[in-house]
Amino acid sequence: MTTIRKRIGTRNLLSGDRLPSIRAFAQQMGVSNSTVVEAYDRLVADGIIQSRRGSGFFVCAHTAPLSITRIGPKLDRAIDPFWVSRQSLDARPDMLKPGCGWLPASWMPETSIRRALRTLSRTRTETLTDYGTPLGLAPLRQLLSRRMATYGIDTSPDQVLLTDSGTQAIDMLCRFLIEPGDTVLIDDPCYFNFQALLRAHRANIVGVPFTANGPDVDAFDRIVKDTKPRLYITNSGLHNPTGASLSPMVAHRILKTVEQHDLIVIEDDIFADFENTPAPRLAALGGLDRVIHIGSFSKTLSASVRCGYIAASPDWIDGLTDLKIATGFSSGNLAPELVLSILKDGTYRKHMDALRTRLATAMTRVTSRLQSLGITPVSTPDAGIFLWCKLPDGMNAATLARNALADGVVLAPGNVFSISQTADDLMRFNVAQCDDPKLFETLKRAMG
Amino acid sequence: MTTIRKRIGTRNLLSGDRLPSIRAFAQQMGVSNSTVVEAYDRLVADGIIQSRRGSGFFVCAHTAPLSITRIGPKLDRAIDPFWVSRQSLDARPDMLKPGCGWLPASWMPETSIRRALRTLSRTRTETLTDYGTPLGLAPLRQLLSRRMATYGIDTSPDQVLLTDSGTQAIDMLCRFLIEPGDTVLIDDPCYFNFQALLRAHRANIVGVPFTANGPDVDAFDRIVKDTKPRLYITNSGLHNPTGASLSPMVAHRILKTVEQHDLIVIEDDIFADFENTPAPRLAALGGLDRVIHIGSFSKTLSASVRCGYIAASPDWIDGLTDLKIATGFSSGNLAPELVLSILKDGTYRKHMDALRTRLATAMTRVTSRLQSLGITPVSTPDAGIFLWCKLPDGMNAATLARNALADGVVLAPGNVFSISQTADDLMRFNVAQCDDPKLFETLKRAMG
Repeated sequence: MTTIRKRIGTRNLLSGDRLPSIRAFAQQMGVSNSTVVEAYDRLVADGIIQSRRGSGFFVCAHTAPLSITRIGPKLDRAIDPFWVSRQSLDARPDMLKPGCGWLPASWMPETSIRRALRTLSRTRTETLTDYGTPLGLAPLRQLLSRRMATYGIDTSPDQVLLTDSGTQAIDMLCRFLIEPGDTVLIDDPCYFNFQALLRAHRANIVGVPFTANGPDVDAFDRIVKDTKPRLYITNSGLHNPTGASLSPMVAHRILKTVEQHDLIVIEDDIFADFENTPAPRLAALGGLDRVIHIGSFSKTLSASVRCGYIAASPDWIDGLTDLKIATGFSSGNLAPELVLSILKDGTYRKHMDALRTRLATAMTRVTSRLQSLGITPVSTPDAGIFLWCKLPDGMNAATLARNALADGVVLAPGNVFSISQTADDLMRFNVAQCDDPKLFETLKRAMG
Repeated sequence: MTTIRKRIGTRNLLSGDRLPSIRAFAQQMGVSNSTVVEAYDRLVADGIIQSRRGSGFFVCAHTAPLSITRIGPKLDRAIDPFWVSRQSLDARPDMLKPGCGWLPASWMPETSIRRALRTLSRTRTETLTDYGTPLGLAPLRQLLSRRMATYGIDTSPDQVLLTDSGTQAIDMLCRFLIEPGDTVLIDDPCYFNFQALLRAHRANIVGVPFTANGPDVDAFDRIVKDTKPRLYITNSGLHNPTGASLSPMVAHRILKTVEQHDLIVIEDDIFADFENTPAPRLAALGGLDRVIHIGSFSKTLSASVRCGYIAASPDWIDGLTDLKIATGFSSGNLAPELVLSILKDGTYRKHMDALRTRLATAMTRVTSRLQSLGITPVSTPDAGIFLWCKLPDGMNAATLARNALADGVVLAPGNVFSISQTADDLMRFNVAQCDDPKLFETLKRAMG
């Protein structure tokens, strides 16, 4: 089944193509005829292939469109990235969401957003009604460029392209940089939507074991040599889900391998503003020749105000701008103006200062509460919102997530983050979403 | 050159692959060695291939990313979709833009937008800071579903997925529905960004001659039989650039062919609200089984408030939602709330009533001014913003566009809309952008 799915996914089998006969395929795979019959039957049930009386099995006809969930392995729902995303996004207001990746609404700078909206209601007509330029609002690009300079990343505003979100930035870069079948490295574990995104691009996804200081450098080196990837996607600071940050030595060694093997890196820096001490940035160490730096304000300012950015070499920004025009025509200025006005008015810095303190307190409190349930953090992050925790021996995270969901709690079980599926006793907790004492009662009950 | 580009574009040649030897390729193509040498030299100059001493020519190494402008034919700048888009979007405030596809800021409902922003500044916190649900703001989807019902399109709100724009809607659908190399039909002429978008998807683009009542039905039938397309993208009402609308008979015949040959149609309906009398909608006649209906408010409300939508069969909406999560995570509610509040408060309808009257007046005035320069509309549209015009005999639209640009006027020459490049004596004018009398002086001068 997996082989057929893969051939369809990689377009070695196209719609209308005839599948190998049951006998031929059984022989080829070294399995029994009945195994193939069963596999074909299941593919028919899934609507991927169809049988035509007397003439065999065929890949389904044209009108069956791409189903990303069918690319890659069929996963148990509890550890399927799409399912976890949908659970978090669709959760009813009365549900608890320690598994989601963002702050509660009450932790966000609503006063600043309300003020920015009032200011915007008085701005010039063009801002309210016109398309933005293809690169996006110039004063915001200038400000972002100055912000990146504080991390040692050397950019000009013309090297910054605004997008609708951080995810959209990575998506656009994948379209720009990779072809179906290209190998892409991700951290294992990593943000689960990277897997979903790369499945949509039909990439060959390879994981690199992730340590408390960043990716395992020896493994990284070996895997790069073995798999010749085109791209590596990572978080340098406050890695999702582990909360770890790159050490300078790891950063340097990763970058050496990257340069030696002509790799491109996407450095997804959306948690930067949560840091107490900035981690080294690959884009600072290596420049923007082969490192692409992206960010957004969804986690710190508002997820409703859609605005992300890409910083890359000028050549690539030019090609990316064409791609932006072709696939979205242009950006509006409304969301960028809102972000700009909040970044400029001084309240954003104060909000982040307060947020870091509040998160540190929550981190301590949630750690001790989890520990009292036998759930122990794998490491203690410097800052941020995530705690990556080991469950008591023998406990399965997917099972726990399923039980908890029945009780109205959305969890994020380890394997949803792990391409190698080696995190079945781990769980990611968002400390900002663990305020409600009811959560720990439910957890205790769900843990049996 | 075109052959090599195409092979690279369709991934028959991958990066690092060796090109055929000069002699072998010359023989294969039936041209002289020196022609191949010249072509290879130009590809080297363009950075697409490189020569390695003694061992021949190779497709350039990994770090050269996708360049959409290199997919498809190399076009003269004046008729390159990307260049025209960039000229319009990047135009300085003092430039005139009869070639652009949107209304001047002063024609947009700024009072309503300002009021909606003030209202939004007082809304609940979650709206300001949280992600929206994957499908997008429910009350807006309900309203859109009711609006579509007035065109006879039968949808439930669950069949409506919000996107960031109309273009993004089409882009998402292309990712969902087509594979590189799939044939996609577009009207000839059609909105130029369809070509750019489809080039990004590496589709095989085929044009259907467009008449005053919609696509030429006999040609459509023949082309569908010959090229077995997967998809057809069109505007049913107030077609861009011709301003024509589908006649009921053409709609019926097109749909018959579509159904017979298992085609999917994307009906891009972004000009609906400009119509005086609604044209028949393919989505109304055929239902949403194989017709997908999309829209946005960029042209009538604001291009800065990014919000579009897709109406499709429930199955597809489910797959599209996964794609939306993978590639953009989710939408925010800010832009949808703005659109909703303006659609609901009654001012949008008044704005559109006034706009239609104002456009009708502009249409008459601009027609007569253009006629006095010997520029004659090919047909008289019922409504809308576009006039598709024939230039005086012997005059080339690309040349005229270049001359006008030197004088600060952005025009949209015919061939930018024409996949067959058979519109070199045609020009699209946006009557709302032709208010300034200076424009006609400049045109006259540029026409020589």
